[in-house]
Amino acid sequence: MSAPVVPLPQVDHQRALFAEGLALDCGMVIAPMAVAYETYGTLNAARTNAVLVCHALTADQYVSATHPLTGRAGWWDTIVGPGLPLDTDRYFLICANVLGGCMGSTGPREEMTDPEGRPMGRPWGTDFPNITIRDMVRAQKLLVDRLGIERLLGVIGGSMGGMQVLEWAATFPDAVYAAAPIATAAYHSAQNIAFNEVGRAAIHSDPDWRGGRYWEDGGIPAKGLSVARMVAHITYLSEQALTRKFGRRLRGASSLTFLEDVFEVESYLRHQGSTFVRRFDANSYLTITRAMDYFDLGAEHGGDLSAAFRGTRTRFFVSSFSSDWLFPTSESRAVVRALNAAAANVSFVEIASDKGHDAFLLEEPDFHRALGGFLAGCADRLGV
Amino acid sequence: MSAPVVPLPQVDHQRALFAEGLALDCGMVIAPMAVAYETYGTLNAARTNAVLVCHALTADQYVSATHPLTGRAGWWDTIVGPGLPLDTDRYFLICANVLGGCMGSTGPREEMTDPEGRPMGRPWGTDFPNITIRDMVRAQKLLVDRLGIERLLGVIGGSMGGMQVLEWAATFPDAVYAAAPIATAAYHSAQNIAFNEVGRAAIHSDPDWRGGRYWEDGGIPAKGLSVARMVAHITYLSEQALTRKFGRRLRGASSLTFLEDVFEVESYLRHQGSTFVRRFDANSYLTITRAMDYFDLGAEHGGDLSAAFRGTRTRFFVSSFSSDWLFPTSESRAVVRALNAAAANVSFVEIASDKGHDAFLLEEPDFHRALGGFLAGCADRLGV
Repeated sequence: MSAPVVPLPQVDHQRALFAEGLALDCGMVIAPMAVAYETYGTLNAARTNAVLVCHALTADQYVSATHPLTGRAGWWDTIVGPGLPLDTDRYFLICANVLGGCMGSTGPREEMTDPEGRPMGRPWGTDFPNITIRDMVRAQKLLVDRLGIERLLGVIGGSMGGMQVLEWAATFPDAVYAAAPIATAAYHSAQNIAFNEVGRAAIHSDPDWRGGRYWEDGGIPAKGLSVARMVAHITYLSEQALTRKFGRRLRGASSLTFLEDVFEVESYLRHQGSTFVRRFDANSYLTITRAMDYFDLGAEHGGDLSAAFRGTRTRFFVSSFSSDWLFPTSESRAVVRALNAAAANVSFVEIASDKGHDAFLLEEPDFHRALGGFLAGCADRLGV
Repeated sequence: MSAPVVPLPQVDHQRALFAEGLALDCGMVIAPMAVAYETYGTLNAARTNAVLVCHALTADQYVSATHPLTGRAGWWDTIVGPGLPLDTDRYFLICANVLGGCMGSTGPREEMTDPEGRPMGRPWGTDFPNITIRDMVRAQKLLVDRLGIERLLGVIGGSMGGMQVLEWAATFPDAVYAAAPIATAAYHSAQNIAFNEVGRAAIHSDPDWRGGRYWEDGGIPAKGLSVARMVAHITYLSEQALTRKFGRRLRGASSLTFLEDVFEVESYLRHQGSTFVRRFDANSYLTITRAMDYFDLGAEHGGDLSAAFRGTRTRFFVSSFSSDWLFPTSESRAVVRALNAAAANVSFVEIASDKGHDAFLLEEPDFHRALGGFLAGCADRLGV
């Protein structure tokens, strides 16, 4: 955490602007509103081959190709491309930075507007309203409409992306032919809320956060955000994955030297923390984690999750990973039970993996075959 | 975290002083050295009824009766007393604050001495050496010798206390008749090291830590220590315990109000953090968590855990809790396998509980019966 840290550079993202804005669950209207997005592949003439990819907490619209800030490959590069499960020769992939994010969509680091929509010469910061997963989905729907797509072939996403998939299917059932919620849940558990709260407390505790007004002096709460990332990162991995990767190996020492920073797992976590602050905004992190915590799809439907899917004609493919303890298989099974109770068309698979929650982003051939097969089957039925 | 926070008050603990000090694993000698301790019950004339209780990371010697700082009951008050599993009518219980602790034993907040043992007019702070679980146990052995006890009837402890129990049995086998390591492991796992590192990073990130020299201006790194406690506290509870205690209940609100601090689990964690800083020292926390991370009893014996117990005549009672994910049953089973390989006298029980790691401190009648029965059986054999 010793290298100099500067605020995120501005990047010229592809954006759709909505002058009319968006009415949020909290009652406020954000107008104008921008949705930054990327597309991969080509929309066919019938506009029937569009697949929306929903990203997780700290990811963004750069699913594939090179990330403009980190210079690294996109976060799902392993399965996006010609002939791959998310086949860009066949599908038109869309991914939008979530509302509240920090990669070009309207969020805490974008310029604030007054109730008449006039720019106020300062970022939203902590004045950005509390948003929900449903608000994120409504913003995406505006983009999909703008692109002239009436019905998405598929909506796909893992973790918080999976929450958006479930919300899409519940809120816009006629716009979703196939839905693949991956490694997710229909509500955020007490344990997950607790871990998020630790991350938020770490950010709030950093004096460089300055009550959220760190943008005033060009600084960022790098230490607090780094600690938040460190604790979150542990929850993304399984005990087995951590042990396989690091065990109790010491860094540059063959025996205990009683120096600081001796265990490899420690320097790995610190590295995760310090690189994260170069690509993510602290106020966005606060906003998005809170949206995850609020998420409870059953509660949105009178406490009955199956009511969220009543009468649905969407085809569902639910998947989980055996060693995922952040979004355990039991939570996917609860989604499947609700879908069954709604007489939905649903298949479910638990992938045997020891990689933990992060498995959905990693090399998991069985998972990739299953996901690709589901999507291809749906495309076949639609004649895409 | 808004109430005023002051450094720990000095308390007149009962202490044994060792002018000759202690030679540490790191090669340094700390002299003089103090061991603060409490006793419960009466030592019999034959000095055969002594039971050493080893405390966990953030506990102390106040096993029973009123805690001098918090005014609350001792941490194992439920099982210590006349007729209870740790029967003070029958046993003479001893509990010492660990070396490196902050309740009177030599540690970071006690006055530093120079190599000639002369007081230096300032606390050890971060100049306190890196210590090991074995160092803690050696300090306890000096106390037990001082009390004129040749062999302990039992050594008992959970979590880091269990690490000390294993180390006692390995290092001083003839001084331990019966050993009960509870909810513990023979080494600290990569995941546990990772969680500890997050806590340390939170403390290091707090500018009030001041590189460990917070004692200079009478302040303490309350925010960092509080975050460290919050993340650790999550690991002490099971997902089920958190859900049962809090679920997604909102505090003082019947629906989502989009205010800060809405979930009960959040205010609970914040309360845990803010009360902790009133009874614990940040530099002690750094010192003791590192000692836990270093712990690897097998590595101390050429990589063969069973070699640690070769030829032992100690009776072992190993116990774990089914929902403990910090020290899972698999790690207790590894201890049992090593004891079996050393042909030791060992019994093992996994207690069915949904309370997580904290179960060893809570109302668990099956566990209390098993532990009390083991100790009473050993006392019977010894004619105590």
